[in-house]
Amino acid sequence: MSGLTHFDQAGKAIMVDVSEKQNTARVATAQGKIVVNEAVYKAICEGSVKKGDVLGVARIAGIMAAKRTSELIPMCHPLLITKCMVDFKMLPAESAIEASATVKVNGQTGVEMEALTAVNVTLLTIYDMCKALDKTMQLQDICLVQKSGGKSGEFVNPNL
Amino acid sequence: MSGLTHFDQAGKAIMVDVSEKQNTARVATAQGKIVVNEAVYKAICEGSVKKGDVLGVARIAGIMAAKRTSELIPMCHPLLITKCMVDFKMLPAESAIEASATVKVNGQTGVEMEALTAVNVTLLTIYDMCKALDKTMQLQDICLVQKSGGKSGEFVNPNL
Amino acid sequence: MSGLTHFDQAGKAIMVDVSEKQNTARVATAQGKIVVNEAVYKAICEGSVKKGDVLGVARIAGIMAAKRTSELIPMCHPLLITKCMVDFKMLPAESAIEASATVKVNGQTGVEMEALTAVNVTLLTIYDMCKALDKTMQLQDICLVQKSGGKSGEFVNPNL
Amino acid sequence: MSGLTHFDQAGKAIMVDVSEKQNTARVATAQGKIVVNEAVYKAICEGSVKKGDVLGVARIAGIMAAKRTSELIPMCHPLLITKCMVDFKMLPAESAIEASATVKVNGQTGVEMEALTAVNVTLLTIYDMCKALDKTMQLQDICLVQKSGGKSGEFVNPNL
Amino acid sequence: MSGLTHFDQAGKAIMVDVSEKQNTARVATAQGKIVVNEAVYKAICEGSVKKGDVLGVARIAGIMAAKRTSELIPMCHPLLITKCMVDFKMLPAESAIEASATVKVNGQTGVEMEALTAVNVTLLTIYDMCKALDKTMQLQDICLVQKSGGKSGEFVNPNL
Amino acid sequence: MSGLTHFDQAGKAIMVDVSEKQNTARVATAQGKIVVNEAVYKAICEGSVKKGDVLGVARIAGIMAAKRTSELIPMCHPLLITKCMVDFKMLPAESAIEASATVKVNGQTGVEMEALTAVNVTLLTIYDMCKALDKTMQLQDICLVQKSGGKSGEFVNPNL
Repeated sequence: MSGLTHFDQAGKAIMVDVSEKQNTARVATAQGKIVVNEAVYKAICEGSVKKGDVLGVARIAGIMAAKRTSELIPMCHPLLITKCMVDFKMLPAESAIEASATVKVNGQTGVEMEALTAVNVTLLTIYDMCKALDKTMQLQDICLVQKSGGKSGEFVNPNL
Repeated sequence: MSGLTHFDQAGKAIMVDVSEKQNTARVATAQGKIVVNEAVYKAICEGSVKKGDVLGVARIAGIMAAKRTSELIPMCHPLLITKCMVDFKMLPAESAIEASATVKVNGQTGVEMEALTAVNVTLLTIYDMCKALDKTMQLQDICLVQKSGGKSGEFVNPNL
Repeated sequence: MSGLTHFDQAGKAIMVDVSEKQNTARVATAQGKIVVNEAVYKAICEGSVKKGDVLGVARIAGIMAAKRTSELIPMCHPLLITKCMVDFKMLPAESAIEASATVKVNGQTGVEMEALTAVNVTLLTIYDMCKALDKTMQLQDICLVQKSGGKSGEFVNPNL
Repeated sequence: MSGLTHFDQAGKAIMVDVSEKQNTARVATAQGKIVVNEAVYKAICEGSVKKGDVLGVARIAGIMAAKRTSELIPMCHPLLITKCMVDFKMLPAESAIEASATVKVNGQTGVEMEALTAVNVTLLTIYDMCKALDKTMQLQDICLVQKSGGKSGEFVNPNL
Repeated sequence: MSGLTHFDQAGKAIMVDVSEKQNTARVATAQGKIVVNEAVYKAICEGSVKKGDVLGVARIAGIMAAKRTSELIPMCHPLLITKCMVDFKMLPAESAIEASATVKVNGQTGVEMEALTAVNVTLLTIYDMCKALDKTMQLQDICLVQKSGGKSGEFVNPNL
Repeated sequence: MSGLTHFDQAGKAIMVDVSEKQNTARVATAQGKIVVNEAVYKAICEGSVKKGDVLGVARIAGIMAAKRTSELIPMCHPLLITKCMVDFKMLPAESAIEASATVKVNGQTGVEMEALTAVNVTLLTIYDMCKALDKTMQLQDICLVQKSGGKSGEFVNPNL
């Protein structure tokens, strides 16, 4: 078969049965960045120390989005996440801001999608708040950093 | 000032007042891609012609997400979008799938964020459905392609 | 072609472009019924005059669901409905309760789906509240009663 | 009393207390059908093998709706469903399409409403996508097929 | 430090990590009131025994809102509430209606916010339904009444 | 009659028909406060200038909630709000924080409920973030400040 677990034998999309999986502690971290022009980079830097706190707003949006992952991604299971944090790293050499999100759950399935959704909505919110200054911003390098818990165990992204 | 329109003079986040803006026909197109390994690329190609239609599911997710943009992005105005389409382009040389979304509205503010949200959720859905085969997939080059309508008029991304 | 307007030439699902359609006054009425056993029928009758008002709760659920139609039905356009009412008719001969919903909008597309969604969720709520007394209830004959407005104009269901 | 568990002694609607109930494995299956005219029946048949895949879209909508049952049905408890699948059976003799949904949970209350909601939204989505070809389609025979788990144990609908 | 648990050392908002907390039975009750003019007070009294049942509608709204608390309050954890009830007390001397809500969960964090959200939305719904008769209504004295369960144990509001 | 516009002649709840009302510019402002103990008051003051910005998070929550008013309040019409701002005033004499919200729309019905919902959720978010320091906080004096637009015209709350 194709190895795509979200389809049954007949090729029909399903929310896979996780009812027999163990309830274990699971963590996932994802990251990504937004590349911006000089005006945006400067405005974000100033805002975070002074006023017009773009990153503060984006963080809230990312955390709230993590909670709604199963509403957005059709085959995702609903989960009771027990932690979500979003952090930023300024990358002056690339004129970019990196966002990372870590999500935890005690559950029957992992939280990669929750971490990735948090990163995406965080970056989209930065985009929204800065688009008057730059219409060519790009979201780049959004990926899973690491995950642990569950049958497949520890994963650390070898590309990072 | 910083030029960030989503903050007032005092640096407080606001949903900006668009009540005096014209109701005009607006369109925006965004795109982005997901870089995958060989197994995923093959599974997606086969699914789209046979069974296990990853892209069909991702398209639905993207269209539905466009309608919920203002719930996800804190300062986005709610909008009655009048069209949303999501399309794909297979990029064999890069082992990637490109998604693009076009959104229309007759409204007082543009639909860039709706088009970008559709692209992001489309790509995240591909990620979700293929993550059993590849944990190192990356979302790349998500950006606005073009927009028209409104006071700022036509924009075509010069980087594409 | 197939005549299915929610797919493009290539067979891909789209939210169709209604941006060129007229903003006109549109109304739609839908109905359906739930067939219940004697115990449920009696409990509902008593509740509506005394206490345990099943139909009062179901009506609220139906009205609230009408507002969320575009979140549930993938290709539905978001709409600003201007009226929603849900009504009931007791059908003692069939041991059934009939629900009908009327929805109005000034918009570019009709409100059949909103009226149908209101009816469905109204009936499902009756089901939920009475399922301790009867597990064999059935939803029956859910259909559009009439609609007006828009290019296609007046429609009255000839089967009713 | 009336036997309606969603009302207290005084007749007020409540979300009943399930906190003392056991967390057990529960499954429920519901079904229902949509009766369509010849043009719709033909379009759906062709779409499922070729292009314009109505049932593929409807399946996604049904699965996503199952996850939102507690938002739609006022007294439903939120649940972490562990599986959801939607299937179809073509009924040429009746010019109808039957949809069935199976939902699983390890929880303190059952998933009948989730399965029924999935069936209803699946059928409504078929309606939406085909309404340009037939305005007289009817949803029929929506009911619980079977359920297991919980105190009340196994139930198989005797009418089927 | 400030003692604000929803911020990390660096002052960044986080959804706090509750993954190591015990799953215990937790209950919380909140209350609040709405002060109304004579016309509203009379209409509500009559409606509750006859027709135009304002409190019946408000109760449903409150119960449904409790389930959505984690969507509204940014740092709230999602929870599977196992009970929610909303009750009213007429306060003729103050021309006010008091609403109280009790919520239960078996979970890793408490349900104060769920009970408070239920009270707030209940009162707002009364406001909405009566605002044609009185535009000066006030929500007053919304607070936690008591809570139990979890590490901090029993709390009874000493001000009541 | 009772004067309650959200019920029909027979006393049934309805979303009232606003389809014949004018699309006019409408604005509403609401306010309310949360009374807190000394520790909370101090933490909020410090946070707003340094780190742990409670009010910044609460503002986002309030703005996002305004957009979801029609999902929470059963008979509220969906609206495309064109502006939402939330502001704070520190009230040291009362050890309280006052929140106010102003919402605008060009629509067929007013935005009082949107402004009130924004205030309520803003205050609830402050509550949530500070509840580790004070379990006796109270929401007080939540009311409409003023509104304009629509048939009923200008209203200024005479009690303020």
